[in-house]
Amino acid sequence: MFSLKLIGYFAGFFSTIAFIPQVYKTWKSKSAKDVSMHMFVIFSLGVFLWLIYGITVNDLPIILTNCVILVLALTQVILKIKYDKTSVNCR
Amino acid sequence: MFSLKLIGYFAGFFSTIAFIPQVYKTWKSKSAKDVSMHMFVIFSLGVFLWLIYGITVNDLPIILTNCVILVLALTQVILKIKYDKTSVNCR
Repeated sequence: MFSLKLIGYFAGFFSTIAFIPQVYKTWKSKSAKDVSMHMFVIFSLGVFLWLIYGITVNDLPIILTNCVILVLALTQVILKIKYDKTSVNCR
Repeated sequence: MFSLKLIGYFAGFFSTIAFIPQVYKTWKSKSAKDVSMHMFVIFSLGVFLWLIYGITVNDLPIILTNCVILVLALTQVILKIKYDKTSVNCR
């Protein structure tokens, strides 16, 4: 049971931190035209619902991981809106 | 309790289908240079661990949703490798 919990923690950890490199890449390159806005908006909606679910069942790991993912996903949405306005299309 | 389950189903549904627009966008534009490879590799690892977790606790919704997400995330990784090789950098 210990190793099962550990797998769950690692699963949550990796799926949460995964969004950091995307936000960093967009912020550094100041370009996000290949990133799908629909993906991040739909994903944010899903994560928001997970957050409500976590708050309702009072599950701290669900609340915390989804809070972090929601902040990262919404940051990506904001960066995309910002950089899509200013980016130069070369094609 | 019914509405709580419903929130969980919708949360799972949105976080699963969210990856479809990204895969479609990359496939259509044949470009993924703004998409972070690290994000999709780390995310795939997390989803793979969720899948193992789901199989261990024998939870069909966890197994099914993570199977679909894993297929979509790995498809995105393959498309990125493919198009990053052939894309022309305009900067």
